[in-house]
Amino acid sequence: RPEHLPSNDITKTDDKMRAFAEKVFASDAKDENVRDEISMFDIADDCPILHQEQAMHLDRDEDEEKRWVAQEASLRLKKRRQRCRTMGVPVACSSLSSVAPVVDVEVETPTYLEVPDFQRVAIIGDYASGVTMDDFELSCKGLYRAMNIREKYMRLAFQRFPNITSQYLREMEGEPFRAEDQVQPGRSPQPGTQGEDPFDVNALPKNLGYVARMKDGVIYVYDDQAAADKGQPRALPCTDYDTFIDDMNFLIALIAQGPTKTYTHRRLKFLMSKFNVHEMLNEMEELKELKNNPHRDFYNCRKVDTHIHAAACMNQKHLLRFIKHSYRVDAERVVRKVDGKDVTLKELFQGLNLHPYDLTVDSLDVHAGRQTFQRFDKFNAKYNPVGASELRDLYMKTENHLDGEYFATIIKEVASDLEDAKYQYAEPRLSIYGCNPSEWTKLSGWFVRHKVFSPQFKWMIQVPRIYDVFKARNFVPHFGKMLENIFLPVFQATIDPHSNPDLSLFLQHVTGFDSVDDESKHSGHMFCTKSPKPEEWDIAKNPSYTYYIYYMYANIAMLNQLRRERGMNTFLFRPHCGEAGAVTHLLAAFMTADNIAHGLNLKKSPVLQYLYFLGQIPVAMSPLSNNSLFLEYAKNPLLEFHKKGLVVSLSTDDPMQFHYTKEPLMEEYAIAAQVFKLSTCDMCEISRSSVLQSALSDEEKTHFLGEHYLKEGPEGNDIRKTNVAQIRMAYRYETLCYELNLIKEGVKAE
Amino acid sequence: RPEHLPSNDITKTDDKMRAFAEKVFASDAKDENVRDEISMFDIADDCPILHQEQAMHLDRDEDEEKRWVAQEASLRLKKRRQRCRTMGVPVACSSLSSVAPVVDVEVETPTYLEVPDFQRVAIIGDYASGVTMDDFELSCKGLYRAMNIREKYMRLAFQRFPNITSQYLREMEGEPFRAEDQVQPGRSPQPGTQGEDPFDVNALPKNLGYVARMKDGVIYVYDDQAAADKGQPRALPCTDYDTFIDDMNFLIALIAQGPTKTYTHRRLKFLMSKFNVHEMLNEMEELKELKNNPHRDFYNCRKVDTHIHAAACMNQKHLLRFIKHSYRVDAERVVRKVDGKDVTLKELFQGLNLHPYDLTVDSLDVHAGRQTFQRFDKFNAKYNPVGASELRDLYMKTENHLDGEYFATIIKEVASDLEDAKYQYAEPRLSIYGCNPSEWTKLSGWFVRHKVFSPQFKWMIQVPRIYDVFKARNFVPHFGKMLENIFLPVFQATIDPHSNPDLSLFLQHVTGFDSVDDESKHSGHMFCTKSPKPEEWDIAKNPSYTYYIYYMYANIAMLNQLRRERGMNTFLFRPHCGEAGAVTHLLAAFMTADNIAHGLNLKKSPVLQYLYFLGQIPVAMSPLSNNSLFLEYAKNPLLEFHKKGLVVSLSTDDPMQFHYTKEPLMEEYAIAAQVFKLSTCDMCEISRSSVLQSALSDEEKTHFLGEHYLKEGPEGNDIRKTNVAQIRMAYRYETLCYELNLIKEGVKAE
Repeated sequence: RPEHLPSNDITKTDDKMRAFAEKVFASDAKDENVRDEISMFDIADDCPILHQEQAMHLDRDEDEEKRWVAQEASLRLKKRRQRCRTMGVPVACSSLSSVAPVVDVEVETPTYLEVPDFQRVAIIGDYASGVTMDDFELSCKGLYRAMNIREKYMRLAFQRFPNITSQYLREMEGEPFRAEDQVQPGRSPQPGTQGEDPFDVNALPKNLGYVARMKDGVIYVYDDQAAADKGQPRALPCTDYDTFIDDMNFLIALIAQGPTKTYTHRRLKFLMSKFNVHEMLNEMEELKELKNNPHRDFYNCRKVDTHIHAAACMNQKHLLRFIKHSYRVDAERVVRKVDGKDVTLKELFQGLNLHPYDLTVDSLDVHAGRQTFQRFDKFNAKYNPVGASELRDLYMKTENHLDGEYFATIIKEVASDLEDAKYQYAEPRLSIYGCNPSEWTKLSGWFVRHKVFSPQFKWMIQVPRIYDVFKARNFVPHFGKMLENIFLPVFQATIDPHSNPDLSLFLQHVTGFDSVDDESKHSGHMFCTKSPKPEEWDIAKNPSYTYYIYYMYANIAMLNQLRRERGMNTFLFRPHCGEAGAVTHLLAAFMTADNIAHGLNLKKSPVLQYLYFLGQIPVAMSPLSNNSLFLEYAKNPLLEFHKKGLVVSLSTDDPMQFHYTKEPLMEEYAIAAQVFKLSTCDMCEISRSSVLQSALSDEEKTHFLGEHYLKEGPEGNDIRKTNVAQIRMAYRYETLCYELNLIKEGVKAE
Repeated sequence: RPEHLPSNDITKTDDKMRAFAEKVFASDAKDENVRDEISMFDIADDCPILHQEQAMHLDRDEDEEKRWVAQEASLRLKKRRQRCRTMGVPVACSSLSSVAPVVDVEVETPTYLEVPDFQRVAIIGDYASGVTMDDFELSCKGLYRAMNIREKYMRLAFQRFPNITSQYLREMEGEPFRAEDQVQPGRSPQPGTQGEDPFDVNALPKNLGYVARMKDGVIYVYDDQAAADKGQPRALPCTDYDTFIDDMNFLIALIAQGPTKTYTHRRLKFLMSKFNVHEMLNEMEELKELKNNPHRDFYNCRKVDTHIHAAACMNQKHLLRFIKHSYRVDAERVVRKVDGKDVTLKELFQGLNLHPYDLTVDSLDVHAGRQTFQRFDKFNAKYNPVGASELRDLYMKTENHLDGEYFATIIKEVASDLEDAKYQYAEPRLSIYGCNPSEWTKLSGWFVRHKVFSPQFKWMIQVPRIYDVFKARNFVPHFGKMLENIFLPVFQATIDPHSNPDLSLFLQHVTGFDSVDDESKHSGHMFCTKSPKPEEWDIAKNPSYTYYIYYMYANIAMLNQLRRERGMNTFLFRPHCGEAGAVTHLLAAFMTADNIAHGLNLKKSPVLQYLYFLGQIPVAMSPLSNNSLFLEYAKNPLLEFHKKGLVVSLSTDDPMQFHYTKEPLMEEYAIAAQVFKLSTCDMCEISRSSVLQSALSDEEKTHFLGEHYLKEGPEGNDIRKTNVAQIRMAYRYETLCYELNLIKEGVKAE
C-alpha cells in the first residue's frame, strides 16, 4: 500500500459535522437555481448572523473604526516625525523576532531593496478584532486548521504555499520552521528558450519499466507487471480518499460557521479600510519611488496573460484576416473529406453560401455581445465562425484534414506578435477531452509537426467537464475510462519517454492542467464517502465539480511524485473556479489548486475569501470576459480583492470573443486602469502577480522579478525590474504578518 | 450700416423677462460654487415642479406607459404579420405628405437603401404628451421659437441646421420650404488631399483692397480707408447685439419655465423607453442587416477623432520614445538660448538633473491619475513632461529655438500612424492666444516650414479663455485687443492673401474655431445689454463664458460671410461646452455653435437636452477624459444621450494624458463598447456621427458615408459604407419626425 499522509490530528470530523456539511451544501445548491443570485455579489446577504446577533455590537465597533480612520488622517502631519518603525506589526515584531519580517534596512542592503520611510496604519489594542474572545479563538482555530489542510495538499502535489504562512503555522504548533521543508513549484527552463532545439528526442530519459494502472479513479505506479497484478504500488505519497472527504467536510462546516463568518468578514472589511488609508497616506510616496526608478515603467515590466484559451487567442480581426488570406492562397486546396469526396476550400465556402472577400467581423460573428450575458450556452456557439462548425474545424482545431496546419499558423502568428511586443507572455490552454486514449498522441503530434513553439507561450492542458456528453453518445463506458484516457498516456510517457517521443517532448512544454466548463450547471451530486468510484460512475449524469476536481488533483499529485522522482517538470493544477456556481467549488480549489482562474464567487464567502488571502492563492481575473458573461464590469470584485491583498492578475480568457484591439492584454489592463482608477503602482503590482502566478521558469522569474523573487516582502522585490514600490511590498507583507499573527494569538489563547 | 437680420417677430422679450433671466442666471451661478454639484447629473433635481405640481398626474401616466411597454412586448408575435407601415409616424405621414419622411421602398430604390421590415413602436392617442393642453401649447411655442433662433444664427454663420427640422418649422409658419434656402456647411477638399501641392502660393486669390477694422468687439469690412473712417461697412449680414441678448434672455427663461421643463423631461424619458423597446424588438434584425452587409464592419468603417488637442495627440509612450530618440541623435544640438548662452540638449537634461536613458513613463508624469480628478488646475500642469516647462517648450510648442521642429515631427508621426490605420481621421487643435498680433504668422510659418500636412488631419484653432492672465501681466490693454489679435490677421489674409501667403495657405487647412479652458471657473459676470463692450473691458476680471462665445461667434460669422463671398473655405465654431460650469454655457452654444465638445451638463437641463436633440447638434464626447477629470466612467451620460437620439461621437481629447494603447481612438471605442455594452450597430452609428460632425470635405463624406449623405433618414445612409442598419436609420428619422410633429400640433393648436 502506498504511504498515506496521516489524517489531520486536530478535532476529527464526526458524522454530525458530515450531516451539517451536507445540509450546507444542499442549501448552497438550491441558491444556484435562482439566476438572479449570480449578480448579487454581496457578502452581507450571506451573513444573516452578522445582522441578527451582532448588529448592535458591530455598529459600535464600526463607528470606532471610522473615528480612528478620521483621526489617523488628521494626525498624519503631526505624526510625520514621530514615526515608529515597529508600529505596523506591533505584535509580530516583538514575539516573532526569529522569523519576523525584516523591514528595517540593514547596512549592507543594496539601494534597490531599501524601503523608504512611510506612514504605517496601526491599531492599538485590537486583540479579538471586535468579536467575543470565545468566538475569536474558535475562528482562529478553524482558520489554522484550514491553512494546515491546504499546506498538506500543496506539499503533496509540489504546489505553492507561502513561506511566511508556513512559518506562522510552525510557530503555532511549537515546531521549528525549516526552509528546506518548503515546497516550491519551481520549474527548469522550457526546452528551446535558451537556444537549444526544443524538439530534440535524443535527450529523453530511458525506460524505467514501471507499470501504470488505474485503481478507484487514480493511476498508481507499480514496479512491474507482477506487482501490479498483486496490487502493490510503489511507495509514492498519495492522497487518501477518506481523509480528503473529512478535510472537505471540515471546511464546508467552517465556511458556514457563524463566528468564523463574522470574524473573517470583519477582517476583510478592515483590510479594505486599511488599504484605503495606506493609499491616502502613501500614494505620493509610492509614486515617488516609481518616478525615481530609472528605465522601468508599466510598459516594460513583464506581464503574463495567465488565462487564455488557445482556440480563441487571436482577436476577431486577426482570424478574419487569416481566413481571407488562406482563401487567397489556398482556394483550390483540399481541406476536407465528406463521404470520401474531396472538398476544396473554395467548395467549402460555396457550400456555406459565402465568399471570404465579403466576410466581415459582423458575419464572422465570433464576438460575445449582449446576447451572451448569462448565457454560457450561446457563448460556446460563438466559437463557430459564421455559425459554421466546418470553419471551426478547419481553423481552430488540431485534428482535421490539414492536420491542424491553419490553427498552428494562427497561433504562431499570435506568438510572433507577443515576441515583438517583448514584455508579454501567455499561457494558452489546449484541450484533452478524455474521450479516447489517442488524443494525447494526436495533440503532441500536431505540436511537434508544426513546431508550435514560442518562448512567449507556456502551454496548459484544459479538460472540459463533459462526461455526460460523451456518455450520452456512448463514447465512454464510465467516468473512470475518461480519467484513464486523460492521465494514463502521460504516466506511460513519463515511465518510458521513448515509447511516445512526441508526447514526451510536448509534456516538457506543458506546465499544468485546467478544468473548464460552465460552472453554473449544477449536477446535484455531493462528493462524499458514499460517492460511487469513477469506474462505477456509469450513469448518464455528470459528476459534480468537486468530484472532477478531486480526481484530477489526485492523479496530478501522483504524476508529479513520479515525475519529480525522474527529475522531470511537474504540473500545476489551475482550474477555472468561482466564475459561477456554488461556493463549494472554491473550497475544492482551496484544497487542491496551485491557483485558479476567475474566483468571482469569493465575494459570496468571507471565510474562503480570507483563506485565499492567507494562502496568497493567485486568482487570474478576466473582467472583460465576466462583463460579457456573468457580471457587469463596474461590479467586478477585482478592485476589492486587490485592495484587500488577495493576489490577483489580469487575463484575457478569449480575445477572439471579448477584445477589440490588437493588444488584448493591454486592452484588459487599460480598461481596468480606467474603470477602477488604478495607480501605476497598482498596475505594476498586478503585472508582478501575473508573473508569480504563471508557470514561467525560475530563470525567467529571476530575470523579470529579481534574484530573490521567492522571498516574501520587500526583500523579494527588485523594483528595478518590477516597478513595484517597496513601500507597497512592505505594506502587503506587514499586513499579511499582522493577520497571521492574530490567528496565532487566537490559537495560543487557551 | 450693415444689414441686420430683423429681430425675432414672435413675443418680444420685455424687461420682466430680462429680470427673470437674470434671476435664473444668478441661481445657476450660485449652484456652481458647490463642487459636489458637478457629479449630480440627475434631471429630477432640477425639476421641482415635476415633483410638486404634477407628481400624481405623472405617476398615473407613467404607469400607463409601462403597461404599454409590456403590452407591446407581449403583442409582438401577434402583430408580426399585421404590421402597419404608417404606425410609426401616425400624424406625420398623413398631414405632412409633401415633406414627410419617405420610408416606403420605391420601385427604383437601390437594394442598399431598402429598409427591411421592422417592428415599430407606436403610441395611440398621445396628443398632449401627458401634460395639460395649456402647458403643451406653451411648451411647443417656446420650443418652436428656440429652434427658430438657432436656425437664424446657424444660417448667418453657414453652420448646420437639419433640413427636416427646417421643413417642420416652415410648415408651422405656413411658409413653403425651399431646399435651396438651406445652409450646409459643406467644404471643398483640403488642398493636398487630391495629390496637388498643399503649399502652392500661386493659386492664392488677389487683393480686394478692403479694409478691416474692429468696432465694439467685432471686425467689420469696409470698401476702403475712407469708408472705414466714415464708419460705413460693407453690407454683409451680421449679428445684432440687442437681438442676440433678447434671444438669449428668452432662452434663459425657457429653460427655467416649469411646463417646458416637465414637457421636455417627459419627452426625453419617452425617447429613452422607446429606444429600449426598439432595441428589444429589432436588435437581431439590425444585426442581420450588418451580417449581410459584405466587406464592411466596425473596423473598416470611418471614424473621426472629433476632439483632440495637438499638443497631447501622441500617447505617453510615443512622447517618451521620441524624447529618447531625439537625445540619441541630437545630444549636442543647441536647443535653447538662456541669457544669450547656447544650451545643448545634453546640457538641458543635465540642468534638469536627469538622463533620457533613465526616463520612464512614470518620471515623464504626463498621465492624468487619481490626483487630477476634479482638479483641472493640476491637470494643466500635466502638459509639462517631468514637470519641466523647458521640455514642454522644446517638444510640444511651435515656437522655440528649433522653430517647433520636434513638435512638427511628433505630429507627423501620429499622422503617419493614422495613415497606416487608414480608417481613422482626427481634428487636432492648435492654439491662438490673442496675446499679440504676430501669433498667426508664427503658427502658419511653422505649419508651412515643416509641411505639417496629412490627409488624416483636419486642423482647428483653439482659443483659451485666459484674458485675465494676459491682463494681469499687462500683455493686452483690454479684451477688445485680444479679439483683434485673434481675428484681424485672418480678415486681412482673407482680403489680401498675398500679404501673408503662409497664413493664407494655412487657413485653407483650418476648419474651425474652438474655445477652451476650465468651465468650472466662474466669472460672475452676466452677459447683458449693459455689459461693457470689449474695447471697454479693461478690468482684471475675465469675461464670462457667454461673453467670449458671443464675440467669437460674431467675428466668425462675419469672417465666413466675407470668405464665402470670395469662394474660400468657411470656419465652424465648435467650442468646448458643458464639460463643467453653468448650463447657460450650453445655451450660448445652442445659439452659436455648429457642434460642441463634451456636453455632459446637458444632463442638468431637460429643455436644452431636448433642444440639442431637435437641432441634431453633434456632441463630441470623451468619457475617458471625463473619467480623469469630472465624472466617473459608468456615470457618463453618453449611453443615455445615444439612446435618446442625440448625435454623439467619441473622441480622445488628450491621448497623452488619458490613454494607454497605441490606438487611442480604438481604445476609446473599445472601452465604451465594453462598459456600455454597445452593439456593433451602435458603434457604427457613433462612427458615422463622428464623420458627420467632422469638418471632412464633401468629397470625403460622400466617399465614407454615401452619395446622399446630406439627406436625412435611411435615404442618406449607404449601409455598404457605414455599416449602420437601415432599420436604425429609419427608427431615428421617424422618431425625430414624430417629436417635431408634436410641436407642430402644439403650435397650431390655438
